[in-house]
Amino acid sequence: MDYAKIAVDMALKSWNIQIDRTTKFFDTQTDEDLKKEVAPGKNTLLYLLGHLIAVNDSMISIFGLGERQYAQLDEAFVKNRDKAGFAFPDTATLRSDWTKSNEILTNYFTKMSPAEWLSKHNSMTEEDYAKEPSRNKLSVLINRTNHVAYHLGQMILVKQHLAD
Amino acid sequence: MDYAKIAVDMALKSWNIQIDRTTKFFDTQTDEDLKKEVAPGKNTLLYLLGHLIAVNDSMISIFGLGERQYAQLDEAFVKNRDKAGFAFPDTATLRSDWTKSNEILTNYFTKMSPAEWLSKHNSMTEEDYAKEPSRNKLSVLINRTNHVAYHLGQMILVKQHLAD
Repeated sequence: MDYAKIAVDMALKSWNIQIDRTTKFFDTQTDEDLKKEVAPGKNTLLYLLGHLIAVNDSMISIFGLGERQYAQLDEAFVKNRDKAGFAFPDTATLRSDWTKSNEILTNYFTKMSPAEWLSKHNSMTEEDYAKEPSRNKLSVLINRTNHVAYHLGQMILVKQHLAD
Repeated sequence: MDYAKIAVDMALKSWNIQIDRTTKFFDTQTDEDLKKEVAPGKNTLLYLLGHLIAVNDSMISIFGLGERQYAQLDEAFVKNRDKAGFAFPDTATLRSDWTKSNEILTNYFTKMSPAEWLSKHNSMTEEDYAKEPSRNKLSVLINRTNHVAYHLGQMILVKQHLAD
C-alpha cells in the first residue's frame, strides 16, 4: 500500500469535511445573521468568515505554491481583533472570496504529490526538518483543519437549538 | 522515509496538541466556572468535559483495543443533551476521569504500530475498506481531533477577552 498517498488522502478528506460543513453553515446565514456575535462580546460571524479566508489562504505562501490571493484581509481579520475599527469588505465580496479561496486551495492541493505534502514547509529550516520530519506541509494542513473546526464550533452557537 | 510512521506521528502530534490545550483550559477553570454555559442557553463546560471523555474513550472499542472505561458516561453526555435531567458524576471525578482517560488512550496509542493505525476500524466492513483505505483508524483519530478542537473553540468563549 502507498502509505504516503493514504496519509495525504486522509488529511485532505478531513480538510474537505470541515470546509464543506463551514460552507453549509455560512450558506444558512443571511447577511444580517453574519453580524451576530458567536457569544456576547465575542467575534462576529463576519469577522470569522474573513479570518478563515485569510488564514487558509496563507497556506499558499507557507507551502511556496504561488502568490496569496487574500493577503489584503490580514490587517482586519488576522492582525487585529474584531471591532478594532478596520473596514470590512462587502459581505457579498467576502462570501464570494470564501468560495473562490477554497477553489484556489483545492486546485493547488490536488496537484501536490504525496512527496511534496510530506516535504518541509517554507517557515522551517532544513535542520529542523531533519530532526522532525513530521513537521511537514501535511501537518500544517492538519493544524489548519483543526483551526477551521475550532471556529466552526463557535459559529454554530448562533443557531437556536442546544445540541450544537 | 517511513511515510506510514510519519503519517501516524503527525496525527498523534495533532491529537496531543488539542488534548494538551483542552487540559490547560480545564485546569484554569474552577468547579464553579465549569457550571458556565459556553453561550447563553448552550452546553455547560461540565457537560462538554463529560462529552469529550466519553467520545474519546469510544475509540478503544472502535479500534478493538479492549474494554471501554467510561461507557457509563454515554447516557448523560452523548446520547442526551445537557440539562436533560441526567445526574452528572462529581466534578472532581470528571476531572480525574479526563486525566485518566487521556493516559489510557496515550498508553494504547503509543503501542499501536503504523500498520495497525492504517488498518480498518471495527465499524467498517472489509469491502468498504478495500474501496477506501483512507477510512482507517488514523482517520478516526483525525476526526476525533477535530471534534476536540470544535468544542475547545466553544469552551474558550467563557474567557473574558475578545481574541479567543
